[in-house]
Order: sequence, then C-alpha cells, then structure tokens
Amino acid sequence: MQYVKIKDSIVEQIASGMLAPRQKLPAERKLAESFDTTRVTLREALSLLEAEGKIYREDRRGWFISPMPLQYDPTQTLNFTNMALAQNRVPRTELIAAKGMLANKQASSLLGLEPFANVFQVDRVRYLEERPVVYVTNYVRPEQFPNLLEHDLSQSLTGIYREHYGVTYQKIRYRICSSSLIGDVAQALRATSGTPAMIVERINYSSEGELIDCDIEHWRHDAINISSVAELIEKD
Amino acid sequence: MQYVKIKDSIVEQIASGMLAPRQKLPAERKLAESFDTTRVTLREALSLLEAEGKIYREDRRGWFISPMPLQYDPTQTLNFTNMALAQNRVPRTELIAAKGMLANKQASSLLGLEPFANVFQVDRVRYLEERPVVYVTNYVRPEQFPNLLEHDLSQSLTGIYREHYGVTYQKIRYRICSSSLIGDVAQALRATSGTPAMIVERINYSSEGELIDCDIEHWRHDAINISSVAELIEKD
Repeated sequence: MQYVKIKDSIVEQIASGMLAPRQKLPAERKLAESFDTTRVTLREALSLLEAEGKIYREDRRGWFISPMPLQYDPTQTLNFTNMALAQNRVPRTELIAAKGMLANKQASSLLGLEPFANVFQVDRVRYLEERPVVYVTNYVRPEQFPNLLEHDLSQSLTGIYREHYGVTYQKIRYRICSSSLIGDVAQALRATSGTPAMIVERINYSSEGELIDCDIEHWRHDAINISSVAELIEKD
Repeated sequence: MQYVKIKDSIVEQIASGMLAPRQKLPAERKLAESFDTTRVTLREALSLLEAEGKIYREDRRGWFISPMPLQYDPTQTLNFTNMALAQNRVPRTELIAAKGMLANKQASSLLGLEPFANVFQVDRVRYLEERPVVYVTNYVRPEQFPNLLEHDLSQSLTGIYREHYGVTYQKIRYRICSSSLIGDVAQALRATSGTPAMIVERINYSSEGELIDCDIEHWRHDAINISSVAELIEKD
C-alpha cells in the first residue's frame, strides 16, 4: 500500500533525526507533492502516523513531530508537576474552572454519591513545554475539604489535601481506555474533533480507606507512555 | 453539532436496550435517511461511536453494537481462557503461526537479545463468542524451552511453561498504548485498516527473576476495559 510506504519513510526520517521533535511538517499540499502522491493518500499516511503517536495535529496550525512521551506509572506517581520535572520536562498547569455543584451522572457514579449530592468540580489543563497535553477533571467530596475552592487550584491538589487537610492518597483504582477528543476538551488541547485520546480514570482513597476524589484525565494519546511493573497475585 | 446529536441518540438506544450487543446496524444509507442527514455527517457520528467503543466495524460486513468489554487487570490475570470463563464469556484461541527464527528488531529490543539470536515467535488470535478480539504475538527465548513448538500452542502458553518446563511467571513489566490496526493484524481481526487498537506489551519474568518471554497484544479497543487497584509507593 502506498500510504504505508509514505508512513514508513516519515518514521525513518524521525528515527534518523532529520525530523526533530516539535518540528512542524510542511503543508499537506507540499508533502503530497514531495511524495508524488494525492492528498487523499497522504492523509491516510498522516492518520496512521497520528494513530501510532509519531505526529500530532494542532487545530488550524498543522502537523508536528511528537516529542518524547511522558513516562506515566499509574501505580506510583500522582503529582503531574513532579513527574514531569523528574523527566526534565517543563510542566505548567492552567486552572480552567472550579465550582461547587450538584453531582452529575459521572460524578455520582464514580464517587458513589446520591443523586443531587454536592460536589466540587475542578477542571485543569496540563502543559509540557507549553503544549497542552491533558485535560483533567477532578470531582471532590466537599465534606472532607471545606473551603477547598479558596486555595490556589493551579497548584497540586494532592499537595493542598496533604498540607491543609492532612489527607493523603493511599490506594487508587484506575481504568484506562482509548477514545477521542471532542468539544471543549478538544479545544482546550488545541485538538481537532476526533483526535485520538487516552483516558485515565482514577478513584483515590485515603490511608483511612475513605474515598477522597476521582479524576478523569483526557490525554493527547501520543503524550504519554503508560507502563508499570507488577508482582503477580494469581499465577495462571 | 448535528453528528454529536446523532451519536447521543444511538448511545441512548443502546443504553435503553433497543439496540442489543452484537446487533448489526442498518446500512449507512438507511441510517442516514432515518436521521435525515448526509452520509458524511452520519460517518462522523459512527466514527465517534467507534472511538468511544460503543460500536465496531467488521470489514465488508458493516457496523455492530459492541458487547460488554472483557475486564482486564494487567497485574493479576495472565491466562486469557480462564479470564474469559470467569466472566461468563466463550473464549477460543486460534494458532496463526509458530516458528523458530532470528530475532527481529522488536524481539531483540524487548527480550534484550543480541542481534540475530534465535527466538521462537508464536502468533495467535483470541476470540470471544467467535468474534476475534486480540492478535497476540509471543517472542520466547528458546534456551529455556527446548522443543516448545512441538506442543499444542492453541493451549495456554503459561500452562505449557508450567507443566512441561516447571517455569511460572512471577513479575511482569507492561506498557499500554493506543494505536491502530493495519495489515495482517487488521485482517485477522476482521478489521478495516486504521481501526482503533489498544496495545498491551508485556515482558514476563520467572520466580527466579529470569526473563521468560514477551507478548505484544493488539486488542480491538472496544473489547477490553483495563483496570486495576494499586497501593501507592510514593505519595505525592
């Protein structure tokens, strides 16, 4: 298939360093010309490269070579900023919205709340080197964290829980699935609707076994590499 | 956006039970008519539903409602057959190919082998209720498993390791990423090229700490729900 050959040729150029991380690709018309192919075939090649996490698209700006993904171990590290710094990345967090509200369906289901219970919702976007990579929504049970919304929520939530309320995470349940970015979330990540996403949903418990909060993370799928080590419990 | 409304309407019909798991959707032309929309808009809606894992496409056969995903905990269960049976599913494994060969780039890198070392490659497709859901490639170090290829490799590999060689898995390193299905893998899963995939790569170690084998699993992304529980080691 011609588009697989074009894909492989771009992968080689990335591997050899001819195309550097964060570099912008030429316009689709020019690329199609240089591979002596049609726009349709070129787009199939780009779409495969996007699916494999080699390139990403910013809405109205074009295609870029993906930087190294962030190594993400769901069983060990919870604080985005420290995780990024430990990997020599430049993190930034932007607070999108924080409010008290009646629990919606997703919040009640994840937090095990009665319908119409009160809940805090905190929406944030995380950046690496000024590229938005993940949209995070936290739902927090308000009874454990009075006045939570008065703190600086662009800082680490786990830091605020620990320093101001003496609460730390001890156990998490997590779920990983793939989906796509649409609507406000896509827009906040400068993504076109339908861009591949990796979704990490976590429910976090304190050392007393109490449910603290949950977070739903919509990652640009090329921006993380989820990996971990496990000692086996069952052996067959 | 009109296509989001169409998507939501189909999601509702699934939730209410009007559309049952494994049910075939009407042809795209008929669907477009019934929603009073164009084929282009309808395809955007179907593409979103596919990304969300609500429907899947079989090559040349059309669109189907996704059955419940298999619950998959990478830290606990290794045997596909037992995992499926425990969830009241009907598993089947088909051996595609098994051979001794010189390690390719992927095998050497995952198993830490010298280039051109010998390795066994075992390719299998796993089915749930006769739907192919995952293409699994195992690379195995031959020195620990002489005559491995003479066993019935449609059976559990971990079972063969344990019963015939006295070797059991103790520790695994795993990596999860999303990509898309292409080429032979897509075809074996009856998928069209570019179908969303969830890839699980595992490197498995024995109780003596020795590297046993690795496996690369290409899942139809709607067919699994990856989740686990972790006790935290670091706490911020």
